[in-house]
Amino acid sequence: MSSSFGTLFRVSTFGESHGVGVGVVVDGCPPRLALDLDEIQADLDRRRPGQSRLVTQRAEGDEVEVLSGVYDGRTTGTPIALVVRNKDQNSGAYDHLKDVYRPSHADFTYDAKYGFRDHRGGGRASARETIGRVAAAAIARQLLRAATGTEVLAWVSSVHTIEAEVDLDTVTLDQVEADPTRCPDPAAAAEMTTAIEQARRDGDSLGGVVTLVARGVPAGLGEPVFDKLDADLAKGMLSLPAAKGFEIGSGFAGTRMTGLAHNDPFVPGPDGPTTATNRSGGVQGGISNGADIVCRVAFKPTGTIASEQTTVTTDGEATTLAAKGRHDPCVLPRAVPMVEAMALLTLADHLLRQHTTSLLP
Amino acid sequence: MSSSFGTLFRVSTFGESHGVGVGVVVDGCPPRLALDLDEIQADLDRRRPGQSRLVTQRAEGDEVEVLSGVYDGRTTGTPIALVVRNKDQNSGAYDHLKDVYRPSHADFTYDAKYGFRDHRGGGRASARETIGRVAAAAIARQLLRAATGTEVLAWVSSVHTIEAEVDLDTVTLDQVEADPTRCPDPAAAAEMTTAIEQARRDGDSLGGVVTLVARGVPAGLGEPVFDKLDADLAKGMLSLPAAKGFEIGSGFAGTRMTGLAHNDPFVPGPDGPTTATNRSGGVQGGISNGADIVCRVAFKPTGTIASEQTTVTTDGEATTLAAKGRHDPCVLPRAVPMVEAMALLTLADHLLRQHTTSLLP
Amino acid sequence: MSSSFGTLFRVSTFGESHGVGVGVVVDGCPPRLALDLDEIQADLDRRRPGQSRLVTQRAEGDEVEVLSGVYDGRTTGTPIALVVRNKDQNSGAYDHLKDVYRPSHADFTYDAKYGFRDHRGGGRASARETIGRVAAAAIARQLLRAATGTEVLAWVSSVHTIEAEVDLDTVTLDQVEADPTRCPDPAAAAEMTTAIEQARRDGDSLGGVVTLVARGVPAGLGEPVFDKLDADLAKGMLSLPAAKGFEIGSGFAGTRMTGLAHNDPFVPGPDGPTTATNRSGGVQGGISNGADIVCRVAFKPTGTIASEQTTVTTDGEATTLAAKGRHDPCVLPRAVPMVEAMALLTLADHLLRQHTTSLLP
Amino acid sequence: MSSSFGTLFRVSTFGESHGVGVGVVVDGCPPRLALDLDEIQADLDRRRPGQSRLVTQRAEGDEVEVLSGVYDGRTTGTPIALVVRNKDQNSGAYDHLKDVYRPSHADFTYDAKYGFRDHRGGGRASARETIGRVAAAAIARQLLRAATGTEVLAWVSSVHTIEAEVDLDTVTLDQVEADPTRCPDPAAAAEMTTAIEQARRDGDSLGGVVTLVARGVPAGLGEPVFDKLDADLAKGMLSLPAAKGFEIGSGFAGTRMTGLAHNDPFVPGPDGPTTATNRSGGVQGGISNGADIVCRVAFKPTGTIASEQTTVTTDGEATTLAAKGRHDPCVLPRAVPMVEAMALLTLADHLLRQHTTSLLP
Repeated sequence: MSSSFGTLFRVSTFGESHGVGVGVVVDGCPPRLALDLDEIQADLDRRRPGQSRLVTQRAEGDEVEVLSGVYDGRTTGTPIALVVRNKDQNSGAYDHLKDVYRPSHADFTYDAKYGFRDHRGGGRASARETIGRVAAAAIARQLLRAATGTEVLAWVSSVHTIEAEVDLDTVTLDQVEADPTRCPDPAAAAEMTTAIEQARRDGDSLGGVVTLVARGVPAGLGEPVFDKLDADLAKGMLSLPAAKGFEIGSGFAGTRMTGLAHNDPFVPGPDGPTTATNRSGGVQGGISNGADIVCRVAFKPTGTIASEQTTVTTDGEATTLAAKGRHDPCVLPRAVPMVEAMALLTLADHLLRQHTTSLLP
Repeated sequence: MSSSFGTLFRVSTFGESHGVGVGVVVDGCPPRLALDLDEIQADLDRRRPGQSRLVTQRAEGDEVEVLSGVYDGRTTGTPIALVVRNKDQNSGAYDHLKDVYRPSHADFTYDAKYGFRDHRGGGRASARETIGRVAAAAIARQLLRAATGTEVLAWVSSVHTIEAEVDLDTVTLDQVEADPTRCPDPAAAAEMTTAIEQARRDGDSLGGVVTLVARGVPAGLGEPVFDKLDADLAKGMLSLPAAKGFEIGSGFAGTRMTGLAHNDPFVPGPDGPTTATNRSGGVQGGISNGADIVCRVAFKPTGTIASEQTTVTTDGEATTLAAKGRHDPCVLPRAVPMVEAMALLTLADHLLRQHTTSLLP
Repeated sequence: MSSSFGTLFRVSTFGESHGVGVGVVVDGCPPRLALDLDEIQADLDRRRPGQSRLVTQRAEGDEVEVLSGVYDGRTTGTPIALVVRNKDQNSGAYDHLKDVYRPSHADFTYDAKYGFRDHRGGGRASARETIGRVAAAAIARQLLRAATGTEVLAWVSSVHTIEAEVDLDTVTLDQVEADPTRCPDPAAAAEMTTAIEQARRDGDSLGGVVTLVARGVPAGLGEPVFDKLDADLAKGMLSLPAAKGFEIGSGFAGTRMTGLAHNDPFVPGPDGPTTATNRSGGVQGGISNGADIVCRVAFKPTGTIASEQTTVTTDGEATTLAAKGRHDPCVLPRAVPMVEAMALLTLADHLLRQHTTSLLP
Repeated sequence: MSSSFGTLFRVSTFGESHGVGVGVVVDGCPPRLALDLDEIQADLDRRRPGQSRLVTQRAEGDEVEVLSGVYDGRTTGTPIALVVRNKDQNSGAYDHLKDVYRPSHADFTYDAKYGFRDHRGGGRASARETIGRVAAAAIARQLLRAATGTEVLAWVSSVHTIEAEVDLDTVTLDQVEADPTRCPDPAAAAEMTTAIEQARRDGDSLGGVVTLVARGVPAGLGEPVFDKLDADLAKGMLSLPAAKGFEIGSGFAGTRMTGLAHNDPFVPGPDGPTTATNRSGGVQGGISNGADIVCRVAFKPTGTIASEQTTVTTDGEATTLAAKGRHDPCVLPRAVPMVEAMALLTLADHLLRQHTTSLLP
């Protein structure tokens, strides 16, 4: 059951890089939601490799097929199964990895855990698994929009040492999508492009940070004490490939402030109290307070690099390895829809959970 | 079900600051574990307020009572219920908070969520809820020690801008407990003490970072793709009061490295491959690799401060508030056993989950 | 996690016969429910032994204490912990059972499962464990009444070969409680009393059937395909000590009818379609249809009898055993509140689950 | 999450009668299981309609495709997704049912629950949904065989008033499959055939009982107090379409015995205690005792009949309805593999759960 996420809006992904296909089952989507299938495909296309010269060139169609749960354009309340078939399955390209553990990859740990491993293209540990997440999240996006007008947007806020300047309150999807880096600060985007291309030439790779904002989140989402909204967001984000850190609101920087400077003063608003500042990042005591939710996710530099590295064989002998073929020198642009996906899935689940508290007047 | 954590080693906490008591039910602890009840009490004592002049002076005995699940000194495999009665229940001290929302606290969001709130001492949002976590984790600690020799240790690595220098490989519990700050770097500890006392005098508060290391974790723990070990650690840590960030291994700093510098080379070892460095923080692909697990948790400066702040009443009117009574100017020292608790609970759960993969030869 | 029941109205019981106490945590009860604690105690009193000469004479006060989750007479939405302390703990009375397996009890299987057993009074397998269920169900009863006017009533419909005649549509709680047998047919109740007393004199025991009706259940409860309302009722009932069978509506007898005779014709009603007959027992396709839910639960004759029986020791040697002390010669009267409890818990959980489908218009 | 079953061996089905396809995801199957895909197909073929003149003639290929989780003939420990495409999708045949509620079907209740319904062929309430269960159970069957040698076998023990005589200890799969009725008593099978054909001619339908035996179940499976083995079996069975009752061991008949006659005496055996009789049905205190597990499931006569019946339209007006097309006059033969499926899934899950208790010596 480790491939399921969420309690009431529950998604279960399946599939590995070089099996027959990947997909997801969404169990718990409310009935009667008018579902735009083209929008699901559009969200998947944002995740797909081969969108620009910055990311891996593997050609994948990633066309989604809806197997169940939708009738006459609306959800029926029964499980929605979505499948994307794998097409570019050149398994032979991975033969040189069968007997060797790639450094900082999941090769060794999968063997340690399962005693058996599908070495082709990372198997289940491949980023291709996130297709199911993004497809399910596209449904969550439509549910959140219909129910509460909530919108989720993420972007690349840093690559290596290059940091973007972005106005959290005004940044738009168009600005994010305007550049292949998915960095809405054009100057930083240009620098990032140069750095990523240089890393590719060097047989090296770069990491960075994705920032996410969720607007229009109603107050009251989050289930203390363990299923706090920020706790579930943290779990979702850390479950993404290559993620190494999560912070919400002031995060690590906030530890260097004092309470007087850090606290968000409440001020009267037309629809109830709001906060004059948002160092809480939209969550207080694990529950949304109606302000924008703001969080950041750290992604390490890609493990797969063309340069030669020291490692060991599956027999435990020392060896060296240099990755063959084409690889992402920087996963950040493609991580953006994945980060959005985990926020959308978390918010949809918590919206349903919060709804149960309204049973009594 | 939001007050439960874990799948197989499942803990359910209950209780609020000024109710009759707080506690926990542990469902899923394997049978036949010899349980040292004094060690449970000792772990609880580390969490307790009033240990030094640095933390809140509320006198709580916090004596734990075992209601079930233990017979003849051993676990029976049935639910273990632990209760601590609340003693210092001066509810009247909180009357001035009944009609006002404390800034950066859970007051407003609990009202928004539940439409009803126990305002006494934070109610369920009080740090007193973590008594159940720490008590359950004391059982997890004994289970992990008996089963795999795993040991978990946390400490205060920074307060405000004061950063400690600590050797991850050699730091001991005695060093941590040697100072009330729970910072094992004596020079930094002295600075922290000064800063915390000054904050108290200023009616202000300080935040900081707790670092945790888990030693002797077997390779193979973690359940991709959603219940990855680091994802569950992140969730556990962000579920703690005042936590705003989590990172594992290189974390946010790692995003500023390149892949060549960041990757952990595998080297042959007597018991199989090990890594020459540990920027992965002991987890690769969501699964432990046998190296020490290293993570860091950010805690914001305490929301409750004696200085006057701007806020609103429950009727939405502007007002001001200055906290009365004694409060922690810095939660970091008491956060240490809480951070350990969430790591212990996560590791115990994943140890049981991993065990199921060994069913077939 | 095997001691939890329900998804959204989730109860977790703990405690064994001769430990310190037994109890339950209810996680997920909606906030703002006005809770009558006397009614919880009254439901517990119905479950208690020693109510009449028909049942075991062990004196138990079974006074319930609310540890958390209730403030100012209303639920807060946080976990409600209820505890009943064990008082009549004469453990020595069970010393003769330490090294022997009682036939048709859980002694052998607990040893087989856990490799370790608390033999005192059945330990966790004691009917005393159901105190937590009944206490939690008393909360569910109040929730169902407040939310939908649903009422649940059970009674003894047969003991051994004596069958009661009861009008499902009109039977009342007063009629059920009028006789210690909890059989609302006075003639059958008198026969049952005679039979049970004779069984006690014979050192023997009797089984029987409990029938339950739930009135005022709204249409729409139940979550196909696995968490169907009747499936969860079946699970709940079979989890009760000594239960060996469950049927809903026509049950096993319905297999001897033809479809034409068995189908329930729909007829127009003022509030929508109703059925002219109720062989479905109020559930169709796993979902309530608005008709009364009617089900029956079979309880085997009590395993513990004063007559000498053949069995084996824990060392596997043949021996004989005759139960000492006082025992229920027939559990049926006390099974009535337990059967009600499992129906109440199931219905409350499904009411909350169904509520989530109303998110969208 | 209502379409998932099991805790550790967790299956999630999807799909409806006239959507694109049906299937299942199995999450939690241990790695390294050698999987015979032909055996999965063979189990599916037993469930398929059109096997004989006794059951509905709809032609379905029901060819299963494995999308993930299997590599090189062995399970990888990651989710196994199985899909069967729907082929015989003559949706127009159901147009006459769009605006009418079939008596004793799920039509009305699905509308009551979801406010929206896929009326084609029963939608999600169709028996076609059980394809996913049977496919997943075929994996469970292979797991149980490899791990513990457990075998599960079911058969038709009664149709209407015709009861078979079957020796529980010796009946074989070949005997069950020898006749299209799946009744291993040839005389009864002949009578059943005659009765079913007569019911078809009469525009009527018949119900009956399926009996199941599980042999070679190790002692210790089952998780008190709620996830008892018999409780989970009961849930699984009642989740099957048309199931109305469940009993284990002596069941309802056992309520007419006395304790002295009913108790199963323990006797010494070469591998530990065994019982001289098996009125417990292999489960005591909710845990398997090593004896054969024996249970029975009641199936009502099929709701769909060619005879004219009274009902109402979706607008609440009185009308009449006579089913068109071909329908099963008796689901019993096809229910056999479904009953086996729910037992296999339950046992596989509990085998994994029990394995966790062996963590400590």
